[in-house]
Amino acid sequence: MTVAGNRRPRRRGNAREAVTGCGVKQLPWQNLEHTRPFIEVLSADELENIHLASLRVLEEIGVNFLLPEARRLLKEAGADVDEGSGRVRFDRSMVMDHLAKAPAEFTLHARNPERNLRIGGNHLNFCTVASAPNASDLTGGRRRGNQEDFRNFLKLGQYFNIIHLYGGYPVEPVDLPPSTRHLDCLSDFVKLSDKVFHAYSLGRERNLDGLEITRIARGISVEILQAEPSLFTIINANSPLTMDEPMLQGIIEMSSRNQVVVLTPFTLAGAMAPITLAGAVTQQNAEALAGIVFTQVVRAGAPVVYGGFTSNVDMKTGSPAFGTPEYVKAAQISGQLARRYQLPFRSSNVNASNCVDAQAASESQMALFGAIMGGTNFLMHGAGWLEGGLCASFEKFILDVDLLQQVAEYMKPVATDPDSLALDAMREVGPGGHYFGTAHTQERYSDAFYAPLVADWRNFETWCEAGAKDTAQRAHEIYRQVLEDYQAPPLDPAVEEELDAFVAKRKEEGGAPSNF
Amino acid sequence: MTVAGNRRPRRRGNAREAVTGCGVKQLPWQNLEHTRPFIEVLSADELENIHLASLRVLEEIGVNFLLPEARRLLKEAGADVDEGSGRVRFDRSMVMDHLAKAPAEFTLHARNPERNLRIGGNHLNFCTVASAPNASDLTGGRRRGNQEDFRNFLKLGQYFNIIHLYGGYPVEPVDLPPSTRHLDCLSDFVKLSDKVFHAYSLGRERNLDGLEITRIARGISVEILQAEPSLFTIINANSPLTMDEPMLQGIIEMSSRNQVVVLTPFTLAGAMAPITLAGAVTQQNAEALAGIVFTQVVRAGAPVVYGGFTSNVDMKTGSPAFGTPEYVKAAQISGQLARRYQLPFRSSNVNASNCVDAQAASESQMALFGAIMGGTNFLMHGAGWLEGGLCASFEKFILDVDLLQQVAEYMKPVATDPDSLALDAMREVGPGGHYFGTAHTQERYSDAFYAPLVADWRNFETWCEAGAKDTAQRAHEIYRQVLEDYQAPPLDPAVEEELDAFVAKRKEEGGAPSNF
Repeated sequence: MTVAGNRRPRRRGNAREAVTGCGVKQLPWQNLEHTRPFIEVLSADELENIHLASLRVLEEIGVNFLLPEARRLLKEAGADVDEGSGRVRFDRSMVMDHLAKAPAEFTLHARNPERNLRIGGNHLNFCTVASAPNASDLTGGRRRGNQEDFRNFLKLGQYFNIIHLYGGYPVEPVDLPPSTRHLDCLSDFVKLSDKVFHAYSLGRERNLDGLEITRIARGISVEILQAEPSLFTIINANSPLTMDEPMLQGIIEMSSRNQVVVLTPFTLAGAMAPITLAGAVTQQNAEALAGIVFTQVVRAGAPVVYGGFTSNVDMKTGSPAFGTPEYVKAAQISGQLARRYQLPFRSSNVNASNCVDAQAASESQMALFGAIMGGTNFLMHGAGWLEGGLCASFEKFILDVDLLQQVAEYMKPVATDPDSLALDAMREVGPGGHYFGTAHTQERYSDAFYAPLVADWRNFETWCEAGAKDTAQRAHEIYRQVLEDYQAPPLDPAVEEELDAFVAKRKEEGGAPSNF
Repeated sequence: MTVAGNRRPRRRGNAREAVTGCGVKQLPWQNLEHTRPFIEVLSADELENIHLASLRVLEEIGVNFLLPEARRLLKEAGADVDEGSGRVRFDRSMVMDHLAKAPAEFTLHARNPERNLRIGGNHLNFCTVASAPNASDLTGGRRRGNQEDFRNFLKLGQYFNIIHLYGGYPVEPVDLPPSTRHLDCLSDFVKLSDKVFHAYSLGRERNLDGLEITRIARGISVEILQAEPSLFTIINANSPLTMDEPMLQGIIEMSSRNQVVVLTPFTLAGAMAPITLAGAVTQQNAEALAGIVFTQVVRAGAPVVYGGFTSNVDMKTGSPAFGTPEYVKAAQISGQLARRYQLPFRSSNVNASNCVDAQAASESQMALFGAIMGGTNFLMHGAGWLEGGLCASFEKFILDVDLLQQVAEYMKPVATDPDSLALDAMREVGPGGHYFGTAHTQERYSDAFYAPLVADWRNFETWCEAGAKDTAQRAHEIYRQVLEDYQAPPLDPAVEEELDAFVAKRKEEGGAPSNF
């Protein structure tokens, strides 16, 4: 059984050892690193074809920047700006000069310094699902997002050590008023978790409120916040080739203050991007580079992540597909491009299934294969995504935690020292013997292998006697157990007081405009 | 919907195009090749540690060969044989000299020459599940293997182009008498399929009957059969470090006639092998090398495949686990070893789930990740395996066909020619436009992307209206449809007559001893 009945006090474990938290056995908190070679889908020449085509898109076609302030800044920095259409064209030297200013690696600070993250290089970080309008679980069914589900996902994200940060609101709490929703949500992030979180770029007030709440949570000055990236925002291009006002405002507010921008075009081949994989990735790359250049125009050296999110649609129905063979190749090519530019790489754990079944798992595994072997540093939607992002599933969250933990285990080195090669044990056991009872086995038996969270390895008869529960049913029980066991991380009462006062003041002021 | 209501005549497709068979859309028959770099889990030095440790196992500990005839042949070839214990020790030069005689690549001939397979090098071949004692589907439940299920799996294996060959009996038809079961089963292989099949090594009579039936099916002489490998057998070591009588007889009968031996120790870390991954793989390697050396002692140049099947047990219950992170690493290390010896590499698509759920899919995907990126040439249990091999599932078969087809799609190159880079299409659509209507899209829309067999990409509401069927339920409908649409491949009446006469004669003689 994966859920233990008795509760034991949390104890610190080392990276080799699974820890027993409050009832559910899981891996300890760890800053993961890639240890396996990345898969290069394209040759160097083929990659250069994509790169050069993207530069031509930026030079010859250009990107619409819908915010006048952004166009002004870009024009000052040397871009060719058409004020009538909003079109901005970049010559290749401007693109490459600005790309070179972005850091290859940086630290993203949490309110608990033990949760600080390195982004870039060989580092590997896992986010929760983000921005789903619906939530579901097996007993409650599918429902519009609400504050209770939002908070419950925050608790799961805090509880599981394999989750490094929140990718946004795991589910949108639509029962909260739009103007002040971000204040409630950001406040919940600080109170229910000590991990890094995200502020949406939906009008500059929301970015500024997010920055102030982050500053309060960390108990630091504005100056230190500007020296230490502590908050991130996802910036999506409006594909094809358009950057809208709130996104550009978000870049200005965040990059100017040295906070993290994750620049991710969402390029669906055959719909918002060319139907050919090379064409879709070329457009993705052009859009990403345009946005990344803009971050460096706003502030040279501002931390920015290259996001790849190219998939395809079902050409019969127009439905978006995720975790397809095309998706995998696009993700791995995106990783090659990010490494070519020496930028951190964001990818995602996605699927299009409508329930937590074999399709959900197999498409997620495909997406993970694309992301992990593509060298992602920043995995969005790591746990909980279902229905192409339209639903955050509690059971899927648990399944994904298991998959992510297995990625961590896969990255562990294989020791080949004499003791691990075990010749003495083989000599002792000899032909026809058994290893269960040997000292070599007994010394290692408690932590030799990964203990899965949700997989059930019992034989068919025993499994039937125990109720023949499938993965989703077992995941349901685990998530319920975790919500019972969850404990809020410590928070300085002075910080909490300052946070509450700020939220109250901003609510009194009416929050942020919500006419988007 | 993946199952079309109307039936159309089968037509030949090229490798770029999905073909519509008799109702179920699938990929065309293709001889697949790896196009992506393999993942090397160990450094060259670490791999050498495993290799050298294996040689020490063979020199210092040795392997028990239980068949006197095998010991005699090994002694003549220079091995150190202890007749009392049956222990055989090999010095490293004998091992390396004999390994060098085995071919790196060979052709495995089918009765239909279009189904001939290349084994080794960059070639990639997919087998069905094999040797399950039980079969299951959603409506019929789980039952002991029987002839009807056996035949139905043969039909699925013939129908799906992505299946290259049969790994053995997909399910054991225990309703057939043991002494003549192999005659009925081998006869069914020839009549229901034109693909390569397998003969069990359970007493030399079964090997000899398999060889004769293969010869009859191909309509060739004994001499041509010996020149053209056309039948294969799986040889499992009795881990630890034991080769039993029927397996050694199988090697003698098959290798002496230039037929294919797939040498696969089944080394469960913590049970029949050391608990450390390096130790378990070292033992696997020693056992595999011992068997492979013996094939070359029997006949220099006989075709042989290096099989890796190291997994771990759940140390709490002793249950075997499959598709774990440890399994993946063992598979990829096994691939490195096979390449070091320039031998074809066999791996497997396995899981320990008791139903076709998220666990079944995610463990299978892990196993496939180990196998495919480990460079397998020969994927056993490619479609249908469930419950750690104790059950062949019809729904899992369909799910796996989808996964294997996706592997094939992943291997397709990504074109980066000017037309694929699609700059003209981007120019035409421009910022804010849509690609659905462009000529670039319309020219490619019918076969731009992989069309999944079982995945359902419709939105939640449409999916609910259609009955909210999960993957297993949809797979059930597909497998039923395929059984309706199945057509037996042509068989020369003279061949059929000769086959029937041989089977009748051998049945009259009593078949083969079944006192094993």
